[in-house]
Amino acid sequence: MTIDLRSDTVTKPSDEMLQAMMAAEVGDDVFGEDPTILMLENKIAKYFGKEAALFCPSGTMTNQIAIRINTQPQDEIICDQTSHIYNYEGGGAAYNSMVSMKLLCGDLGRFTANDVKENINPDDIHYARTSMIALENTVNKGGGSVFPLDVIKDIAKVAVEKKLKMHLDGARVFNALVKTGEKPVDHGKCFHTMSVCFSKGLGAPVGSALLGSKEAIARAKRVRKVLGGGMRQAGYLAAACIYALENNVQRLKDDHRRANQLANMFEDKMYVENIISAGTNIVIVSIAKDKSVSDLLNAWKKKGLLAVPFGPNDIRLVTHLNFTDDMLQKVTEVLA
Amino acid sequence: MTIDLRSDTVTKPSDEMLQAMMAAEVGDDVFGEDPTILMLENKIAKYFGKEAALFCPSGTMTNQIAIRINTQPQDEIICDQTSHIYNYEGGGAAYNSMVSMKLLCGDLGRFTANDVKENINPDDIHYARTSMIALENTVNKGGGSVFPLDVIKDIAKVAVEKKLKMHLDGARVFNALVKTGEKPVDHGKCFHTMSVCFSKGLGAPVGSALLGSKEAIARAKRVRKVLGGGMRQAGYLAAACIYALENNVQRLKDDHRRANQLANMFEDKMYVENIISAGTNIVIVSIAKDKSVSDLLNAWKKKGLLAVPFGPNDIRLVTHLNFTDDMLQKVTEVLA
Amino acid sequence: MTIDLRSDTVTKPSDEMLQAMMAAEVGDDVFGEDPTILMLENKIAKYFGKEAALFCPSGTMTNQIAIRINTQPQDEIICDQTSHIYNYEGGGAAYNSMVSMKLLCGDLGRFTANDVKENINPDDIHYARTSMIALENTVNKGGGSVFPLDVIKDIAKVAVEKKLKMHLDGARVFNALVKTGEKPVDHGKCFHTMSVCFSKGLGAPVGSALLGSKEAIARAKRVRKVLGGGMRQAGYLAAACIYALENNVQRLKDDHRRANQLANMFEDKMYVENIISAGTNIVIVSIAKDKSVSDLLNAWKKKGLLAVPFGPNDIRLVTHLNFTDDMLQKVTEVLA
Amino acid sequence: MTIDLRSDTVTKPSDEMLQAMMAAEVGDDVFGEDPTILMLENKIAKYFGKEAALFCPSGTMTNQIAIRINTQPQDEIICDQTSHIYNYEGGGAAYNSMVSMKLLCGDLGRFTANDVKENINPDDIHYARTSMIALENTVNKGGGSVFPLDVIKDIAKVAVEKKLKMHLDGARVFNALVKTGEKPVDHGKCFHTMSVCFSKGLGAPVGSALLGSKEAIARAKRVRKVLGGGMRQAGYLAAACIYALENNVQRLKDDHRRANQLANMFEDKMYVENIISAGTNIVIVSIAKDKSVSDLLNAWKKKGLLAVPFGPNDIRLVTHLNFTDDMLQKVTEVLA
Repeated sequence: MTIDLRSDTVTKPSDEMLQAMMAAEVGDDVFGEDPTILMLENKIAKYFGKEAALFCPSGTMTNQIAIRINTQPQDEIICDQTSHIYNYEGGGAAYNSMVSMKLLCGDLGRFTANDVKENINPDDIHYARTSMIALENTVNKGGGSVFPLDVIKDIAKVAVEKKLKMHLDGARVFNALVKTGEKPVDHGKCFHTMSVCFSKGLGAPVGSALLGSKEAIARAKRVRKVLGGGMRQAGYLAAACIYALENNVQRLKDDHRRANQLANMFEDKMYVENIISAGTNIVIVSIAKDKSVSDLLNAWKKKGLLAVPFGPNDIRLVTHLNFTDDMLQKVTEVLA
Repeated sequence: MTIDLRSDTVTKPSDEMLQAMMAAEVGDDVFGEDPTILMLENKIAKYFGKEAALFCPSGTMTNQIAIRINTQPQDEIICDQTSHIYNYEGGGAAYNSMVSMKLLCGDLGRFTANDVKENINPDDIHYARTSMIALENTVNKGGGSVFPLDVIKDIAKVAVEKKLKMHLDGARVFNALVKTGEKPVDHGKCFHTMSVCFSKGLGAPVGSALLGSKEAIARAKRVRKVLGGGMRQAGYLAAACIYALENNVQRLKDDHRRANQLANMFEDKMYVENIISAGTNIVIVSIAKDKSVSDLLNAWKKKGLLAVPFGPNDIRLVTHLNFTDDMLQKVTEVLA
Repeated sequence: MTIDLRSDTVTKPSDEMLQAMMAAEVGDDVFGEDPTILMLENKIAKYFGKEAALFCPSGTMTNQIAIRINTQPQDEIICDQTSHIYNYEGGGAAYNSMVSMKLLCGDLGRFTANDVKENINPDDIHYARTSMIALENTVNKGGGSVFPLDVIKDIAKVAVEKKLKMHLDGARVFNALVKTGEKPVDHGKCFHTMSVCFSKGLGAPVGSALLGSKEAIARAKRVRKVLGGGMRQAGYLAAACIYALENNVQRLKDDHRRANQLANMFEDKMYVENIISAGTNIVIVSIAKDKSVSDLLNAWKKKGLLAVPFGPNDIRLVTHLNFTDDMLQKVTEVLA
Repeated sequence: MTIDLRSDTVTKPSDEMLQAMMAAEVGDDVFGEDPTILMLENKIAKYFGKEAALFCPSGTMTNQIAIRINTQPQDEIICDQTSHIYNYEGGGAAYNSMVSMKLLCGDLGRFTANDVKENINPDDIHYARTSMIALENTVNKGGGSVFPLDVIKDIAKVAVEKKLKMHLDGARVFNALVKTGEKPVDHGKCFHTMSVCFSKGLGAPVGSALLGSKEAIARAKRVRKVLGGGMRQAGYLAAACIYALENNVQRLKDDHRRANQLANMFEDKMYVENIISAGTNIVIVSIAKDKSVSDLLNAWKKKGLLAVPFGPNDIRLVTHLNFTDDMLQKVTEVLA
């Protein structure tokens, strides 16, 4: 038995999800005629209180489209230095949108309204024009840290005042919501655009959605087209996302509990320098500088435990719906 | 019963295809671990005698990636004025690759080696640098016209001599191959990159592949990533493509026969000025200038026949695997 | 004595122009403090009845900035296939603005309102969004052909109706105005942005200006900055432009007369197939297909006459303020 | 008498420089025929031991061209967070080259070989591909800090080892060389491309040059063309640059001495929190947080002293060849 904690994207559909997929009614979504995709887009937009949604093959695509429709070439985005859009999207902000980034040094990826204010460029042609703020919630590189709603609201006020667009990279926003019990619509109100993912904690095989106003989503469709994200009978994928949304949200609590137990396992390990786990489904373990991350990962791999390197001295483990209590027990043995 | 001849993309999977999909073994393709996707990529690369392949959500994406990896910003592509990459990809060549286009006026979209030679820009900084030739086979706007292999070979010689890259937009290359009986590998030899589509005549719900050398496909992966085309457990889609490749190629002959019969039906219509149908699965009907395309389409729609406008005086009809002989008979009645 | 008819850009300043340059009051234009540049910008804006102007190092830059501020990435420009922005700006529209081009086949580069109407793309995500019309007046590749004001007005009406931006590449607009006697402000009214050049017929060493509304020029400054077109004490160049505007406009009539006489010289030459000269300062001579353009140019060069190849069988000759009647007489001898 | 210490770009040509300008032999540089520009390009290339050079209207353009020719879209540049290319070029790296930036936190803008090593991205499609290192010498935002040659050499070794391109933003490299007495060619050896400016400390009105291999400069010409940086008879500007290179380099010592004296004047001021002046021609004064930069600058302005805000609490003063000892004395009075 391999225990794969490399990411919450590695999950495979349950039989029930697969049956939902198989039963999906489909159509040509390029003609706007796939009823299952339309249903998903409608459902997820309402979930967060937004007007419209657009189904896309990946979270990178939803984020990249959002940046494009919220900015102009030569603009600058304010985001944290840990953010996925800066680190893990193949240089996409510069490539797809020709925008620069002002990187903040937040607390586990979370910054404040004041940080934003201090980093808006002056209105001067020497500077890139600040036009968008991007938050990530939960923060992947922050060990699944949760962005407090109060802080988000304060940042949104600055955005309104300074006429900046607000975007949420909500790849793991369901983890944040389940953790805090906050209402999705209260988050939705704070953002012009939101990217949410069905193939992480929710366990669908493929799919993300971009949420926003009708006008924003109309423009997003043009960008999805040019990036090659328009699919035909993709309702099979959307059916899994609907199933995931209806069945797999509340169970994220189990992932959080297991991540917490997992983090605790490292407490007494000699080779561990630091553990970051913010109460959701991610654990980042920093090991001593004289230890080798790849050696440790290889040793685990031989015993059936998979995790990923996450910087020169860090390892990331992510819990998910294919990770059971039995497996958790097994990890104890591997680490022992 | 609606007879939908708007495109060969509107088909829905047969029960057999659906079963193949649901039986697929899947994995996280971002980690390169979806066995069904790997199998499809391997299979389609071999089919055309290329080293490697990359599965993508759309033909627009495979074409756009090809343009990007075959060119540099400021370059120019030579292609026909009818080409899909110029007309129907949302301005993608300029947007994704920052390249210009030299548009040739070929015969139903097919140009010659000499046309290419005469349109290579001089080596002078005033001009965009010519670096790629793009062919489409069959040509959508050419009424499904077939690019003869001999002509392709001659163009490929110019490409070698002038150090230009050759790309095939093979959205309907299977129609061309079935029509001529030529070998896929003989076509494969002529191109640096090829884009082939499983969701047109072959009838899969979603999916295209980009083919090329290992080095080209390694670079293509970076571009697919930045466009947001990396999917997770997309093996469900790939399984349908494998099924399509194994079962739905030779039957394209039926689509061609029916398209031919369809074209003949318009011969004696008073409102028809011209019919273009090149022996594959597309029929383009030009109507008299004093007639209205939208009126005619609406009249047909009321009787259950769908087609698309294809320019101010043209209508396109496409046959496909959900279009039967019974339906063909029905069309006769609609047109009568 | 070399007679250089390669371009009207080869002229050198007269002593008077040089004295005007030397006497220029200058300042740091990046701080907006060069009084001579400000004076030129003010003067040329008023000349065409526009609100504001921006001094730039080249006509390519003013055109490229105009395209950028009038469009969005993924948009499409309507222009003639002969246009400088398509042929001679290094692939700039795609590179700097990520826009495609719809190329019209006008009469010597001049198209009509109807041509424009028929080439506006449908509002559909498959197509690039049509957002700008670009005219060139006079048309370089049209042998200096003049765009009639009536035609321009009709096109401008379509632009207003369809919410398209109108740009003039006025590299040689002074030649057009002197030829027709039309008022600059009547042309100015038809365009959102205009590019005019001081270093062609007007004979200044360096400099072009972009004209438009205050808002457009404010945005243009950002683009000029990012392209690296902001200069410091460039008032020396601007002084020459002011001198040129005040002294060298009406004398373009002499260039036109000499171009006409030049064109006539080719009438009886056996090797000439066609002569295009539209009454301004350009002559395009097409030679027989069995003759070599480079051989002919080399033969002329040995006798002291310079011209440029202008396509496989064409030669361009341009008259200018350093081309005198004596030289014209000399050309007769060279051609004899 | 106004004492303008806002920048070393505000200088005006001396009579001798002006005479050199007006005596310049010029030609059409787009045809490569301006002898004075060719002379300058040759001279400055040799000065730093590089093969070739390209004259451009601004330092922003030379930097932007360098980034473009040294990188591919989706790549990442390593540079300091203080660097001009990040802060003051209008978002150009993302706009013109579609590249991201990895920002280092060096000591007054100077980083080490080790900093570079630790910030090269892994070879993984999630990350932008690291392909270039950019240094600035002296560092503008570092108060004119000098990058030690030994450190530069160490970084260059990493560049060779990791196959990264090295670029110098040498807007004020002459200040660095005069300060250290190091040989220009020793610096030249460390870089693939160098940008040097004649309109800062050297006092020419307009002009920068990009230096590199013949192949690099050939590609740079294509980029200069598309940015609109090709000028016609710009030898007038180049003549001033030649004059500046021959006459105004060693005198930078005076600027450095005066900057040092200027820095000392702030030592005993109550409102000053910190002074950064690294021995060249820049002084950065940080004032107490409860004081207003704009108030102070306005007070100075009334007394005839100009400086620029340089962040929320900082003021920058720059010495230059129009700043005399008399003026220095006057500044003492203004500050008193």
